[in-house]
Amino acid sequence: MQALVLREKGQPLHYGEWPDPEPGSGEVVVELKAAALNHRDVFITQGLYPGIETPIILGSDGAGLLNGREVVLNPSIGWGPDPDIQARSYRILGLPDPGTFAQKVALPETQIYDKPAHLSWEEAAALPLAGLTAYRALFTKGQVEPGQKVLISGVGGGVALFAFQFALAAGAEVYVTSGSEEKLARARDMGAAGGVNYKNPDWGKVLQSEAGAFQLVIDSAGGEGFKTLLKLCAPAARLVTYGGTQGAVPKFLPQHIFWKQLSILGTSMGNDREFADMLKLVADRQIHPVVDSTYTLEQGAAAFERMDQGLQFGKIVLQIPG
Amino acid sequence: MQALVLREKGQPLHYGEWPDPEPGSGEVVVELKAAALNHRDVFITQGLYPGIETPIILGSDGAGLLNGREVVLNPSIGWGPDPDIQARSYRILGLPDPGTFAQKVALPETQIYDKPAHLSWEEAAALPLAGLTAYRALFTKGQVEPGQKVLISGVGGGVALFAFQFALAAGAEVYVTSGSEEKLARARDMGAAGGVNYKNPDWGKVLQSEAGAFQLVIDSAGGEGFKTLLKLCAPAARLVTYGGTQGAVPKFLPQHIFWKQLSILGTSMGNDREFADMLKLVADRQIHPVVDSTYTLEQGAAAFERMDQGLQFGKIVLQIPG
Repeated sequence: MQALVLREKGQPLHYGEWPDPEPGSGEVVVELKAAALNHRDVFITQGLYPGIETPIILGSDGAGLLNGREVVLNPSIGWGPDPDIQARSYRILGLPDPGTFAQKVALPETQIYDKPAHLSWEEAAALPLAGLTAYRALFTKGQVEPGQKVLISGVGGGVALFAFQFALAAGAEVYVTSGSEEKLARARDMGAAGGVNYKNPDWGKVLQSEAGAFQLVIDSAGGEGFKTLLKLCAPAARLVTYGGTQGAVPKFLPQHIFWKQLSILGTSMGNDREFADMLKLVADRQIHPVVDSTYTLEQGAAAFERMDQGLQFGKIVLQIPG
Repeated sequence: MQALVLREKGQPLHYGEWPDPEPGSGEVVVELKAAALNHRDVFITQGLYPGIETPIILGSDGAGLLNGREVVLNPSIGWGPDPDIQARSYRILGLPDPGTFAQKVALPETQIYDKPAHLSWEEAAALPLAGLTAYRALFTKGQVEPGQKVLISGVGGGVALFAFQFALAAGAEVYVTSGSEEKLARARDMGAAGGVNYKNPDWGKVLQSEAGAFQLVIDSAGGEGFKTLLKLCAPAARLVTYGGTQGAVPKFLPQHIFWKQLSILGTSMGNDREFADMLKLVADRQIHPVVDSTYTLEQGAAAFERMDQGLQFGKIVLQIPG
C-alpha cells in the first residue's frame, strides 16, 4: 500500500510503498478514504512526544470502508472500564500502533463506528480526535447548559472549533478568542456572540465589558492568559483545560478560585460512550466539521507545514488514493 | 454586656462593657456560652480583610442558649438559593455583623441549630465555621468515598482537622502533612494511616513511597507545595483548595492536570444544607472536635496571639462568662 512514513524523528515524512497491515486478534482492516492531522502528529515528528519509535505511520483520524460499510474510526483505544480515566493500556491510534496516513489501517473492531450519513469523507475524517476531546471537555467536564455564556480560546484549532460548534448546538451564548482578526470574523459568521483578539494587551477588559462573566471557559493555551480567563469566570464557573501551548501559568493564586468556588478541570480525549454520543450529536444536529484545507496523501509534508504554522481554521485533511 | 472589641485595625482587642445587641426583624439574641477563633479573625485584626469597619465585635463561631434551648450558630448568613455559590448578600458572622466574642449576639433565626447533645459547650463552639468548610470541601466538592486514599495538608488547622476526622468517619485511608512532628504524632494517634513533615525537602517522595497516589487532596496552603500535591494525585483525582496561606503557585502547568484528568476545585464556607448535614454527621458518628486550648473571653488577646503563632492543634476556644 501507499503510506506516509516517519522514518526517523526530525526527518521529513516519506511517501511511498509500505507493507499492508496485518490485523491482530479482534482487529479489522479499514480501507481509508480520508485522514486528518492533529497537533499531536506534528509534535511527534518534532520528537516532542514520549515513547516515539520509528519507522511509524502517524495519523489518529480516519474514515473509510470496512467491507463496503462507511465507517469512522475512534482513535481512543483501550480506554477501559472507568469512564473518568483511561486505563494503563490506553493508547491513541497512530503511536505506537500504525495510524491512518496510509491506504489501510488495522485496528480493534471496537473502534469502528458508522459514518454520519450527512458527512463527506473529508468531514468524517476531520471529526474523531478533536470532536471527541471537545465533547468530553464541553459536556462531561464543562456540563454546558442552554443560555450559559461560554468562552472558547484559540478558536482556529480543531478541538476549539468543535467545542464552539457543539456549544452553539447546546444553546449556549458563545464567545471566542483568537490571534487573528480573520478567524474572529469567521467565528462571528458561524454564530459567535462576540470575540476578541488576544494580541490586544487589554483583551480581558474588552471581553468583560462586551460579555460580562462566563459560566464555562474551554482553554488549551495556559500561560499568562490563563489568569485573565480565571478573572473572566463567573462565580461557580468551570474552566476546562485540554492543553498548554503557551506553557506555564505564572503565579497561580488559590485565592483566585476558592472564594468564587471555581473549578479547574483537566481533560484529555474521551471514552467510548462519549465517542458514540458525539457522533449522535453531530448526526442529530447535522453539524459539519470545518475543513480548513485538503491535501493528497502524497502532499502530506505540505499539510504538516501548514499545521505547524498555525494558520488553519479547522481541520487539515488528507485524501487517500483508492 | 461584656465583649471583646476591635476598636481600630492594628490595635489590641479591648475587653469591657458594650451595649447589648438590638435584634432586627427576623433576628434572635443568643446568650453565648463559648466562642471559637478562626484565622479570619486574626487576619481582620491585622487589617488583611476587605471591608473592615471598626469598632466591631469579631467572632464567627459560637454556641449558647436561646430561651433555654441549647444551640449552635451557623455563621454562613444569606447563602441564597443556589447551592453552588453564595449570593451577593452573603456574609460571615463577625464582619460586618457583630460576632460571637461577647455575652450576647443577635443573628437571623435561620442560623440557629440544635447543639449536638454529646458536645460540651467548648466543643460545640469549635465546630461551625471550620466544620462547615471541611464538610463542603470533603463531601460536596471532594466526593470522598470509603477506601479512598485522602491527603490533608497542614493538619493542625481547624478546617484540616475536621476534614481529617470527617474523612476517617467516611471510611477513607487518611494521610496528613504538617511542619510539626508533634502534630503528626497526634494525627497518627487519632487514626491517620501516615504523615510527613513538609519541612523535609523530599516530603513528596517520602509520601509517595509510603502511600502511593491519592484520590483526594484537601489543601489550604498553595505555594510551591501545591505542585508536589498535584504530583501526588492519582489519575482522575480531585484537589480541593480552600486557602492560600503559602501564596502563589509558581509555574502551574496545565499539562500536569489534563492528561491525568485531574480537577482543582475551589471551595469556601458552605450552604445551609451542608451545615445541617455536617451537624448530623457529627451527631451520628459521635465526633468530638479537637479543642487545642481554652481561654476566658477576658484573655482573648492571648488566644489571638496563640493562633497567630500557628502552634495550635485544633480549635482555640473562648469561654463566655454567664
